[in-house]
Amino acid sequence: MKLTKTVSELRSFLAAKRAAGLSVGMVPTMGALHAGHRSLMERARRECGVVVASIFVNPTQFGPHEDFARYPRPLDRDLELCRDVGVDGVFVPEAQEVYPAGFTTWVDVEGPLSSTLEGAVRPGHFRGVATVVLKLLLMALPSVAYFGQKDAQQACLVRRMVRDLDVPTTICVCPTIREADGLALSSRNVYLTEAQRRQAPVLYQSLEAARAAAASGQNMTDRLKELVKERIAAASEARLDYAEIVDPDTFLPVAAVEREALLVLAVRFGSTRLLDNAFLSPPSAGAH
Amino acid sequence: MKLTKTVSELRSFLAAKRAAGLSVGMVPTMGALHAGHRSLMERARRECGVVVASIFVNPTQFGPHEDFARYPRPLDRDLELCRDVGVDGVFVPEAQEVYPAGFTTWVDVEGPLSSTLEGAVRPGHFRGVATVVLKLLLMALPSVAYFGQKDAQQACLVRRMVRDLDVPTTICVCPTIREADGLALSSRNVYLTEAQRRQAPVLYQSLEAARAAAASGQNMTDRLKELVKERIAAASEARLDYAEIVDPDTFLPVAAVEREALLVLAVRFGSTRLLDNAFLSPPSAGAH
Repeated sequence: MKLTKTVSELRSFLAAKRAAGLSVGMVPTMGALHAGHRSLMERARRECGVVVASIFVNPTQFGPHEDFARYPRPLDRDLELCRDVGVDGVFVPEAQEVYPAGFTTWVDVEGPLSSTLEGAVRPGHFRGVATVVLKLLLMALPSVAYFGQKDAQQACLVRRMVRDLDVPTTICVCPTIREADGLALSSRNVYLTEAQRRQAPVLYQSLEAARAAAASGQNMTDRLKELVKERIAAASEARLDYAEIVDPDTFLPVAAVEREALLVLAVRFGSTRLLDNAFLSPPSAGAH
Repeated sequence: MKLTKTVSELRSFLAAKRAAGLSVGMVPTMGALHAGHRSLMERARRECGVVVASIFVNPTQFGPHEDFARYPRPLDRDLELCRDVGVDGVFVPEAQEVYPAGFTTWVDVEGPLSSTLEGAVRPGHFRGVATVVLKLLLMALPSVAYFGQKDAQQACLVRRMVRDLDVPTTICVCPTIREADGLALSSRNVYLTEAQRRQAPVLYQSLEAARAAAASGQNMTDRLKELVKERIAAASEARLDYAEIVDPDTFLPVAAVEREALLVLAVRFGSTRLLDNAFLSPPSAGAH
């Protein structure tokens, strides 16, 4: 497995693979890898000739009072996981390689995709995400890049950005991976206390309850959100940030589940924010 | 010569050329082609295996009261010029191909490069330029793209954007082409009345005067700008928009010509704005 730290090393590595006729699959990550990332890498491994992962804790997507400094960075363990999956190359740039002196260009996906929900709670977050993802894609020029559905708004925004800017990469969004009790895997789960961890499956449970209600004919999103809020309120350690039901392409709120809709959820346990989401379908629409 | 109107046609055309081992050179234009554009295409023709030009009057770089509607669009003559130079492919997209419904992603090069001079006179202009140039480059993925020095701030901004976003294209900025009397070629020269056209060489003459003064040791930019302003003021049809001397990489004003500096000039003749620029060097620095 090739470790690269500069864009030019990464490009040389990939140029040789491309010259050998291999298609490139990329898994951009911030490290602290778990089974969710692993599933993305495994999918890339099945679908692409050469698989490159990037590990970069992107400073520009963290707000001034967020967890950039304490974000976990277990590099050796991360590399071990990549090796185990059969990743061919790992790109681990320093911040000054990605944002050299004089850097001043930013990518903005305007509208509800960047301004509502996570965008409202974390001003500037999606500008940082869009900019770094574009840069990583242009560094490696993969045929396919893999993202997790767990960060639903990010996945949707990346898809929109790639389409709008004609980036020659297919964005593949893969299912959320969960613990046995339903908790969505996240690098931030390590922040949870034992008591918080015990209650954290309430996100999944409330999503499942809403999904079941929608599938049995409750299509009013106000009622579905109420149902979620009640469930979250019953968990003493949990504080709801938001529960919203939106159009999966635009992130505009919908009043009724008349076609597939996305229920997105953010819940605080102490200072740790957990995200989760589920697609809701009306009874007639069949399975997702 | 292949004419393409959609991104997918353009990409198919170029994929076949790339498969044959040819490098791609691109000349992005807004049409109304003149000898300036021609020189870019000729250079691309000499340096690249396949040459593609784009002709697209980009609506997003025009302000609401600018000349988008009346901007010249002599397509047949433009195609004839491309054919004559030996261009291999011309990409002529409709606006909805470049900006389809739902488009909402923008590229901003922040700081003086986009906010001063042309950016101050034309708010939003450089956002439109950066976004469309990135899109065109990602549609065609050329090894080299060719721009004219005549639009100096645009050339500098494109170079910065390409570097900041890791676009895998080399930006080649080529010398301004002039009429025999020194007037820089521009698609907007056709707007000039006869009287205005007769006086228009005053831009070049004032640049040359400043260049000569700098070369003979006058390095105070206030004095050099004064010299330019006096020359422009002497032309009855001309109204100075700005004359500024800046660092060629950052477009920050400089107080003295201690290394190579860029004198940028915008002059109105009636409602027509003409741009021109020249590099100034101190006596010791030698020729540019």
